[in-house]
Amino acid sequence: MDKIKNNSPVLFYFNHSKKWLVKISKTESLHTHIGVMKHSDTIGKEYGTRLITNKDKYVYLLKPTMYDYVMKIQHGTQIVYPKDLGYIVARAGIGSGQKILEIGTGSASLTTFVANIVKPRGHVYTFDVDEKFMKIAEKNIKKVGLTKYITQHNFDLKTEKKIPLIDADVALIDLGDPWIVIPKVRQMLKNSGCVFAICPTMNQLEKLTMSLVENEFTDIESTEHIIRTIEAREGKTRHSFQGIGHTTYLCFARKAFFGKKSKIASKSKTPKKTVKKTIKKTIKKTTKTTR
Amino acid sequence: MDKIKNNSPVLFYFNHSKKWLVKISKTESLHTHIGVMKHSDTIGKEYGTRLITNKDKYVYLLKPTMYDYVMKIQHGTQIVYPKDLGYIVARAGIGSGQKILEIGTGSASLTTFVANIVKPRGHVYTFDVDEKFMKIAEKNIKKVGLTKYITQHNFDLKTEKKIPLIDADVALIDLGDPWIVIPKVRQMLKNSGCVFAICPTMNQLEKLTMSLVENEFTDIESTEHIIRTIEAREGKTRHSFQGIGHTTYLCFARKAFFGKKSKIASKSKTPKKTVKKTIKKTIKKTTKTTR
Amino acid sequence: MDKIKNNSPVLFYFNHSKKWLVKISKTESLHTHIGVMKHSDTIGKEYGTRLITNKDKYVYLLKPTMYDYVMKIQHGTQIVYPKDLGYIVARAGIGSGQKILEIGTGSASLTTFVANIVKPRGHVYTFDVDEKFMKIAEKNIKKVGLTKYITQHNFDLKTEKKIPLIDADVALIDLGDPWIVIPKVRQMLKNSGCVFAICPTMNQLEKLTMSLVENEFTDIESTEHIIRTIEAREGKTRHSFQGIGHTTYLCFARKAFFGKKSKIASKSKTPKKTVKKTIKKTIKKTTKTTR
Amino acid sequence: MDKIKNNSPVLFYFNHSKKWLVKISKTESLHTHIGVMKHSDTIGKEYGTRLITNKDKYVYLLKPTMYDYVMKIQHGTQIVYPKDLGYIVARAGIGSGQKILEIGTGSASLTTFVANIVKPRGHVYTFDVDEKFMKIAEKNIKKVGLTKYITQHNFDLKTEKKIPLIDADVALIDLGDPWIVIPKVRQMLKNSGCVFAICPTMNQLEKLTMSLVENEFTDIESTEHIIRTIEAREGKTRHSFQGIGHTTYLCFARKAFFGKKSKIASKSKTPKKTVKKTIKKTIKKTTKTTR
Repeated sequence: MDKIKNNSPVLFYFNHSKKWLVKISKTESLHTHIGVMKHSDTIGKEYGTRLITNKDKYVYLLKPTMYDYVMKIQHGTQIVYPKDLGYIVARAGIGSGQKILEIGTGSASLTTFVANIVKPRGHVYTFDVDEKFMKIAEKNIKKVGLTKYITQHNFDLKTEKKIPLIDADVALIDLGDPWIVIPKVRQMLKNSGCVFAICPTMNQLEKLTMSLVENEFTDIESTEHIIRTIEAREGKTRHSFQGIGHTTYLCFARKAFFGKKSKIASKSKTPKKTVKKTIKKTIKKTTKTTR
Repeated sequence: MDKIKNNSPVLFYFNHSKKWLVKISKTESLHTHIGVMKHSDTIGKEYGTRLITNKDKYVYLLKPTMYDYVMKIQHGTQIVYPKDLGYIVARAGIGSGQKILEIGTGSASLTTFVANIVKPRGHVYTFDVDEKFMKIAEKNIKKVGLTKYITQHNFDLKTEKKIPLIDADVALIDLGDPWIVIPKVRQMLKNSGCVFAICPTMNQLEKLTMSLVENEFTDIESTEHIIRTIEAREGKTRHSFQGIGHTTYLCFARKAFFGKKSKIASKSKTPKKTVKKTIKKTIKKTTKTTR
Repeated sequence: MDKIKNNSPVLFYFNHSKKWLVKISKTESLHTHIGVMKHSDTIGKEYGTRLITNKDKYVYLLKPTMYDYVMKIQHGTQIVYPKDLGYIVARAGIGSGQKILEIGTGSASLTTFVANIVKPRGHVYTFDVDEKFMKIAEKNIKKVGLTKYITQHNFDLKTEKKIPLIDADVALIDLGDPWIVIPKVRQMLKNSGCVFAICPTMNQLEKLTMSLVENEFTDIESTEHIIRTIEAREGKTRHSFQGIGHTTYLCFARKAFFGKKSKIASKSKTPKKTVKKTIKKTIKKTTKTTR
Repeated sequence: MDKIKNNSPVLFYFNHSKKWLVKISKTESLHTHIGVMKHSDTIGKEYGTRLITNKDKYVYLLKPTMYDYVMKIQHGTQIVYPKDLGYIVARAGIGSGQKILEIGTGSASLTTFVANIVKPRGHVYTFDVDEKFMKIAEKNIKKVGLTKYITQHNFDLKTEKKIPLIDADVALIDLGDPWIVIPKVRQMLKNSGCVFAICPTMNQLEKLTMSLVENEFTDIESTEHIIRTIEAREGKTRHSFQGIGHTTYLCFARKAFFGKKSKIASKSKTPKKTVKKTIKKTIKKTTKTTR
């Protein structure tokens, strides 16, 4: 039996938009528009228990999942939404034991989500230059208990020449100008390793794709992800009236070697033309549609 | 340096729809419409290398990721697509060390994807009744090297009364009639544990949601996930002409206790009416829109 | 030159969500949170003129189009959104001179939009039973100046046996239970005429489709229409963060004769079985995907 | 009764993707993979009649609507899809009696669709420079019987200085570089008149929007339209597996006067800065989300 104790984390869940993630502290209370909830009332209860507030509303005491922590980390910077997080993990094949490079820690929502997957033998190396955000990130990482699996670096990959890391399985980039770090990311990735960049605008996708081709990446894919909620109810099932617009586009690619040394060299074509043609071809190849 | 050897797995990547996942075997060749590729030509090459086929096409020798294995497992049963897989992991907060229950192994695409995340300390217990599929699944699991982290059961949870497992973190259901196993799934889940069901039709969502409410689940959410590919090209960026329709809807929920013993009892309301009203309220609460 | 006069209709346009459709009246003023605008200031100005309010905001004096009127008619009932209106016109091939039957006038947004297309030789016959709405509709129709092209009937097509109209080109249904009127609609449509129903739920689509097949309709198509706004801006073009969810699903079909008298009869199959099979086949045929 | 005669147009409808629009000619036959259909067998039948082919398939004899003609006009150039056509009509408020300017006739699918709405008192003036397409367009226009309501011009609006038309209600642009004709389109539109451009790429939207702001247009809106087909079937309703990707983006705007002569002048701000700020503001204003 998994019961709530003092210091246990609890998600007070009222509905999808009203929920509170807290650490139980005997003497505290949670004041909300749906009523007051004393922390002490939850101690000894099983996770999942439903309480009634003094305003006669139902509240559920849920054990927070990584999803709840990620949704909570929303202060100060752009969050990466679960629909996008999930596709990153699925498309890059992120799994237990991997070495992950992240450029742009932000508030560490992506960082913690990924660390929780690659641990205990994998690790996330995350880079940022904004000291303020780095502290917010540090706190968020600590809250989720993942400090051991994440290393934060204050290091500007755009300007510094050193390569602080090699053989990463996957590189995650969350910068306004991701194309600038691509040559360096390439050096830090293992062969045929994956890169994912978070690109809120179409112009970023365009510039980044050109940079990826120039830097010999393949399997380049730009996608966007739309989640639609369905209200499933007896005899009147339909999509939700409220919906969503845009969070971000995602750009994926894998490191390759376009191979001056392989068969192509033996054919001695005019190099310039070949390269140009190659770029065009490569782009074309990478643009087929996926489910 | 990660070089290709005899017996190494290699993804021969031409483009998104033309790619071949093979195990290198010195004496074999891959015959495709874009040319013949001798396995022996790849031995000693680094992953990521680009070759030119005898038909003058570029092919990349990629190291397969879990994504490539999942996409390959497409024989005989419906696959769970990466966009849906990813959301399942993100929304249920699946991470390292968890105990996962799966009902409906199918060809094991979901099974292997999840096992690769929860390992080495977590485990997937997967149930099916079709011996033919169980053998296909077994083979696919072995191919990915995850046999140690997955236990296959031939056991009909719809009819048998035994509870073969308790305290699962997450239950994944891929059955035509998921509502039938909900009472049993409830017993196998730990408190406030998560359930995800793959529901290709709206009618399934409707019936399942009613069953989840009756069985005291909360945070019920039905979603669908649309992935759109963008062709990012200099000066002519646009969505792909070809697109996608429907793969499946997803239904999520968390185990709760509607609590006859908590405060509500002390109010001694007419029970029947209360329950009915509760169901309606709960459904309403679960239908807010998410990103 | 098209100048604004006393009594001219003007759309004061600030932005997409802040706009006011008024009839100019020398002595009046428009009080808004972006400032006060005297009607008299607009008289003599050309349509399109930009003014600055006393709060230093730009407001444009636009000549209202049918779109502006439809968007304005939003009081009391569900509106049919332009994206849905447009598809109805395009898919049913609504054009000049047609005779349109509408069941469920509502606030007359669909009514007026369609009348503005079929006039001057076409006509819309619209039926409702709610006197309150009929008055609202009448007022809206008058405001747009289309009274001559629309006939409002207070007549319950669900219960009354009389057929008040024949040979309609297109029937538009906006009822909670559209399947009930299908047999009557059939009698009012000309051969191979089109029907469109506004169905907010999936369950309505399902029931209506069954009724359409039973009543010998063909080319049955259920669709939903998603509009996404794009913020096109130099160097940072992307979809809007805010988006939309659901307005309604649409169901289209065309009247046919399943033809007991044609060739099929001469084959003398067991009738019952044939009919059943026919229904299944017909549904299957109608479900192919469209752009 | 509307019966099929010699020379009547008939849509032989098998399913959404297999249908044939023909003119009945006593002596001809339609040879398809679902069987042979003699034209003479249809003469005397009512529209809507179902026939059985010699291969035992059902075919419906439908009276073609404007939708059927538009879908048929698909040879040689890009078609404008019904979902997009419909939104153009709805958003620009196209209706009976209007004067429409079209730049880029193409195969005349948009031309005929719109002419069928504005007739009998309205007119479409359409411009193109490609003689080959102009002939195809002419033929298509004739086939639909709309020659009287459409005037085709061989005139290059990009280079010629003459203004061949004024006071258009709506301008429709289907060119690769729509921004080039915006100053001229402005002169041909009546005050606060509407413009719609068909822009297959994001880059076109971006350039066009900048041009529209510079040329004093307001209510600028870029949208894309997604149609999803739903297979409504008893107990197993769901979206179609096959879906759609991208057809085109649409850009809408209305002619305004940014008004050097109105109140703003009296404030004597530094002109340059004002203009720049205005452009930014205007773009921002135009980017709110719509249903």
